[in-house]
Amino acid sequence: MTLTRNIILGAAERIAGHVRQTPLLRLSASLTLKLELLQASGSFKPRGAFNRMLSATLPPAGVVAASGGNHGAAVAYAARALGVPAAIFVPEITGAAKRHRIAAYGAQLVVGGAAYDEARLASEAFATESGALMVHAYDQAEVLAGQGTVAMELAAQAPDLTHVLVAVGGGGLIGGVAAWYAGSGVRVVAVEPQGCPTLHHALAAGRPVPAPVGGLAADSLGAKQVGALMFPLAQAGVAASVLVPDEAIRAAQQWLWQECRVVAEPGGATALAALLSGAWVAPAGARVGVIICGGNCEPGSLG
Amino acid sequence: MTLTRNIILGAAERIAGHVRQTPLLRLSASLTLKLELLQASGSFKPRGAFNRMLSATLPPAGVVAASGGNHGAAVAYAARALGVPAAIFVPEITGAAKRHRIAAYGAQLVVGGAAYDEARLASEAFATESGALMVHAYDQAEVLAGQGTVAMELAAQAPDLTHVLVAVGGGGLIGGVAAWYAGSGVRVVAVEPQGCPTLHHALAAGRPVPAPVGGLAADSLGAKQVGALMFPLAQAGVAASVLVPDEAIRAAQQWLWQECRVVAEPGGATALAALLSGAWVAPAGARVGVIICGGNCEPGSLG
Repeated sequence: MTLTRNIILGAAERIAGHVRQTPLLRLSASLTLKLELLQASGSFKPRGAFNRMLSATLPPAGVVAASGGNHGAAVAYAARALGVPAAIFVPEITGAAKRHRIAAYGAQLVVGGAAYDEARLASEAFATESGALMVHAYDQAEVLAGQGTVAMELAAQAPDLTHVLVAVGGGGLIGGVAAWYAGSGVRVVAVEPQGCPTLHHALAAGRPVPAPVGGLAADSLGAKQVGALMFPLAQAGVAASVLVPDEAIRAAQQWLWQECRVVAEPGGATALAALLSGAWVAPAGARVGVIICGGNCEPGSLG
Repeated sequence: MTLTRNIILGAAERIAGHVRQTPLLRLSASLTLKLELLQASGSFKPRGAFNRMLSATLPPAGVVAASGGNHGAAVAYAARALGVPAAIFVPEITGAAKRHRIAAYGAQLVVGGAAYDEARLASEAFATESGALMVHAYDQAEVLAGQGTVAMELAAQAPDLTHVLVAVGGGGLIGGVAAWYAGSGVRVVAVEPQGCPTLHHALAAGRPVPAPVGGLAADSLGAKQVGALMFPLAQAGVAASVLVPDEAIRAAQQWLWQECRVVAEPGGATALAALLSGAWVAPAGARVGVIICGGNCEPGSLG
């Protein structure tokens, strides 16, 4: 697919009024956090969900999605806002905070399967039977364009950045971010948990391939493989791909709380974990932006 | 005292590089949150603490402060940054999150007395004996000027506001905010817990008078009476004084988490509680800014 800045600008116009412009927290000249976890429904996901739903004619059966939880919450949120029913399929690893959120938005919640990929299969069967519109968690053009609005906003808020760190699950966010920054000189760095190295394996193989799904952030970054649409965007636009252990993710969550009073879920803290742990080292003079992309956890889970 | 915009601008220059510019979260055209709980040390207090300490010659004995916790954490943070010792006196009601924070910054923590006022008396005795510089939690000109930089920032970030809601304990924050907005047409609304109605009683009496200290937010808003310096600023510049029950404060904390993924302590959610509970009703067409002023609680305490 071709994902241009103009397409992303179009998405931004379409979803304006439905999503929040999320703020930056500038910690120093060299480190800026994009607090995307303050987005409606607690993650960046409504950007893509609204763009997909506002680009289509919504059938009476409404919408259906499979999700580790954040995408499901976003689709449920968007469906409520747009007045259509939503059915959300999540795997058993999806935590209580995400389940409650989906149910609180009034969606039909269906729990089944060990990980995201099983929920995806069940959601596809439901879509075929019901006629509901599938809102994919990452592998649809409108979803990628919507997620790209995070980078559009960030570039306007912090035009001085040299590097942007992004966590990767199925790759919708980093696909959109890489597309926005293509040709700009800003280097996009992909960060994944060692337990869910989908993009890392795909880049090594030269194509999306199945990867293990496990560890602390599996309920938000646990896609089985990256999307077909995002992969060429990542090949062209991702400057580095970094893996971090779960201990680094946990430490980044605790750092965010102690230093910033920000409660990020494991997937939301993963990009920062690369910087704090030294898994990725900023070059001298770098001005680094880190997207803190989700906060759908129990606050007490920080320990 | 006279607290002019020029004095506040001077404070802002003095403390630049030591404190963060805190971001806004714009929830709608009519409601904007100033996320001052993302400030270094978890509350607005370093603004005043740095301004006081950078305006003085720091003695070898360092600094001393009495605090429900947030001011103590800020003074401890500032003392560490400036390389001087700090002794922080807190009452027994000060919670674990605030105590840990003060100790983690390397200050000497002294716990004693039932509420802030007893800690204040102990800190004054310590200052006399040791020669340490007193950094008052609210009743010093440099402290008020530092806190006024919150409003200076907010006015630049959101020049369209018509009303600003501010929680009140000893009154340092609202004194600085009222001074900044004086003559601007922006109406400053004071919000206090029913359990700690210091400004409400003072405005009724025409002078600072002792008030009860109790309830959910007593460890951040539990001064026995408002400061002498802030009182004329409040008389001139506070448009309304509102009280909220503890249940409204708790509900505002939970709303901030559910809707915004923001973890505010009770005192930090008190100003918003007035709006959400209807204790204060925005006039038609109002564009309301709410200062979320502190987040030093255990995240699990949200329940």
